[in-house]
Amino acid sequence: MAIIIDGKKTSEDIRLEIKEKVNKIKEQGGKIPHLAAILVGNDGASETYVNFKVKDCEQVGFKSTLKRFKNTISEKELLNEVEAINNDPDIDGLIVQLPIPDHISVQKVTDMIKPEKDVDGFHPINVGRMAKSLPSYISATPYGILLLIERYKIETSGKHCVIIGRSDIVGSPMSILLSRKAYPGNCTVTLCHSRTKSIKEMTLQGDIIIAALGRPEFLTGDMVKEGAVVIDVGITRVPDPTKKSGFALRGDVKYDEVAPKCSYITPVPGGVGPMTRASLLLNTLLAAEKSIYK
Amino acid sequence: MAIIIDGKKTSEDIRLEIKEKVNKIKEQGGKIPHLAAILVGNDGASETYVNFKVKDCEQVGFKSTLKRFKNTISEKELLNEVEAINNDPDIDGLIVQLPIPDHISVQKVTDMIKPEKDVDGFHPINVGRMAKSLPSYISATPYGILLLIERYKIETSGKHCVIIGRSDIVGSPMSILLSRKAYPGNCTVTLCHSRTKSIKEMTLQGDIIIAALGRPEFLTGDMVKEGAVVIDVGITRVPDPTKKSGFALRGDVKYDEVAPKCSYITPVPGGVGPMTRASLLLNTLLAAEKSIYK
Repeated sequence: MAIIIDGKKTSEDIRLEIKEKVNKIKEQGGKIPHLAAILVGNDGASETYVNFKVKDCEQVGFKSTLKRFKNTISEKELLNEVEAINNDPDIDGLIVQLPIPDHISVQKVTDMIKPEKDVDGFHPINVGRMAKSLPSYISATPYGILLLIERYKIETSGKHCVIIGRSDIVGSPMSILLSRKAYPGNCTVTLCHSRTKSIKEMTLQGDIIIAALGRPEFLTGDMVKEGAVVIDVGITRVPDPTKKSGFALRGDVKYDEVAPKCSYITPVPGGVGPMTRASLLLNTLLAAEKSIYK
Repeated sequence: MAIIIDGKKTSEDIRLEIKEKVNKIKEQGGKIPHLAAILVGNDGASETYVNFKVKDCEQVGFKSTLKRFKNTISEKELLNEVEAINNDPDIDGLIVQLPIPDHISVQKVTDMIKPEKDVDGFHPINVGRMAKSLPSYISATPYGILLLIERYKIETSGKHCVIIGRSDIVGSPMSILLSRKAYPGNCTVTLCHSRTKSIKEMTLQGDIIIAALGRPEFLTGDMVKEGAVVIDVGITRVPDPTKKSGFALRGDVKYDEVAPKCSYITPVPGGVGPMTRASLLLNTLLAAEKSIYK
């Protein structure tokens, strides 16, 4: 039977550990970690996400600053706001909640964030440092996956890891991270995507499979070998009239078919999802401790 | 029979094209591309390499500046020299010939080079921009391989590319580049290395194989399927009493066995090797044209 990787529990463990560290910092009169978030406009989902992040900070004892701007803010004004936070010595980490309005370049905003404060790990310097195996902020989802592998002591060295999906925020960085000479890492990594001829041919070889393509229940039982570790990054709302909300959440993995074949599997919800928020808190702590950039 | 990819001829074609472009720039009174190279110490191989690069510049009509320093130069002094070149508006590209003495941090020196002038493509910003599919300088060997694939119009989309070796300068960037949504690219990429359990099992699946591990004649005929494209990045001196020099150059591919099975193959010498110098010239031209960083 598969061991079900409990992302909810793991993320709560991590929050508790962070909280204890913050308490120690407070006792010693040190500087309290401080996360700033920029939110532009009134997108409902974005508001929810940012509010969670602010609450997460409160819960572990971080300071947080939420800067809200109207949809009409100009690119230049927003860049100036980023610059002001870059220069604010009390703020350790800065995230800009995406999406931002079309008239503002995501790349320009990302590039403007001081790498030392880029706790989302999206700045090219942090991506490049990751690829060069230098200390860097690792973005929330990949970092969350690494933490799950670590906490469940899953062997990765020499394993064949098959990743489905080459997005900038999950598939591509995971392929870099798991190839590195490190733990978790030292995998033989195969990165599959929309142009891959036979994804099934690849996944059947996978000792570890990371499904991150965003297609509900894509990975079926016949695509997975016995004993595989399956990490499900997908989370899609599908209509479900039996639910009060009218929808259900589905991962990229057909859980009922795949789970019986696995050694480890992450559920959806409650697997990778909750880890992303814990990762952001960890990165903010790393920023406050100046662990990445000395 | 395999088509032999002629890197010598291709690199000469590219040099001619660059020379023509420089002639046009001169006619129009534009700014002549200018490469600066820093060489520390008296390592024989390094001197040879740098001298080639300077000669290459002369040949295509670039300006070049060679700055030589003694082995005793301090880290701070070297960083100041880099800074001076960063601030010199006439110099478009800067390379620091490696290795440098142990008392100087390669990372610090690399990080100090202005990304806009980093024509070796080693700065984390350029690596990160590459990983994010943003315009970037691609380092010489990977760029040379892409150019060969392009010039020989080798189909890459949907192909399974198996890379052996995860070095920062070849294997790892190649895995990123050939996974991208681009041409050359859109490959399903498998990155193998010293921890891979069965490299042969992987290479037998490869439509394209890139051997970049630095072990002479590692890839043998039984590891390659019929019709594969084989790119040999290795170049190792092995003793050879029949040669006047006392040594011969060997690639990572056992050419006599592998070539008959291939659709395309690069020889050693005369395959990837000559392309790296052409790549550096192209990057310097891109720098002068401000094509990467607008």
